Amino acid sequence: MPPLGTRKCRLRIAAADHGVLATTGETRPHLVPIVYALDGNTLVSVVDHKPKTTPNLARLANLRRDPRCSVLIEHYEDDWDRLWWVRVDGVGGVSDEPALVEAAGLLLAARYPPYRERPPPGPVIRIDIVRMVGWSATPL
Amino acid sequence: MPPLGTRKCRLRIAAADHGVLATTGETRPHLVPIVYALDGNTLVSVVDHKPKTTPNLARLANLRRDPRCSVLIEHYEDDWDRLWWVRVDGVGGVSDEPALVEAAGLLLAARYPPYRERPPPGPVIRIDIVRMVGWSATPL
Repeated sequence: MPPLGTRKCRLRIAAADHGVLATTGETRPHLVPIVYALDGNTLVSVVDHKPKTTPNLARLANLRRDPRCSVLIEHYEDDWDRLWWVRVDGVGGVSDEPALVEAAGLLLAARYPPYRERPPPGPVIRIDIVRMVGWSATPL
Repeated sequence: MPPLGTRKCRLRIAAADHGVLATTGETRPHLVPIVYALDGNTLVSVVDHKPKTTPNLARLANLRRDPRCSVLIEHYEDDWDRLWWVRVDGVGGVSDEPALVEAAGLLLAARYPPYRERPPPGPVIRIDIVRMVGWSATPL
C-alpha cells in the first residue's frame, strides 16, 4: 500500500535529517535544502551561518510575499524497493523576533550538533502544516 | 568559495543519482523526487512503473499549465563541511510521443539498472536548462 498515513509521515519527518523547501518565486518555484525540527504541527527552520550565495535570501522574500510553501523529505537508494518520500504542504511565516529565534535554535540544536556550538542567528521560518502526504515503495 | 560555476554544477548533476522537481501548482509549489539523465542542455525524466498515489500526476498537469520549473540536486551528511547543492531552473515539456519516450528510456537505462529490465512507459519530461546555480560548503 504505497500511500503513507499521517502518523507514518510524522515518524519519517522526525527521523529524517533534512528536506527541500519550495517557495513561490516570481517566475518559478524556488528550491533550497533545509534542516528542520518539528514543533507540534509546525516545521521550524532557521537561517544559519552556512555561507550563502547572497545575503538577500530568496526563501525569505518569497515567503513574505506568498506564505504557501511545501517541503519534501525523501529517501533515495539504488534499491528502488526502499524509496519513500513525505511531502508537507504548509503556510510559512518569517520572524526575527529574538525569543522565537532562540526557541527555534534550541529545538534545532537538539537535532543538529553544529547548532550547539554556534546557535543560528535567524530569522526563523515557521511552517504551519496544512497537509502531509507520503509514499513508500514498500510498506514498512 | 561557496558558489559553484557551471562546469562544476554539470559534473555534480551527472554524478548524482536523483533530484527534487518543483512545478507550479495551483495553490503552492509541487514537489516530487525524480531520477534523471542529462541530454546536452536538457534534463530528462520519464514517468515509470513505480506505484503512484494517483494516475493523474500533478507534475504533468502543472508543467502543461506552466512549464517553468526547478530541480534541486543536493548532498546532505552530518558533516556540514561536505554539504553541497545544485539548482537547475528550466522550462519543462511533457510528451508521450513514442520515439521521445523510447530515447529517454534508453538514456535513463544507462544510469538506472531497473529501467533495463523494465523500460519506463512515459510520458517523458524534458527540461531545457535556463540557469544552473550551485553551492558547496567547501571548495572541492
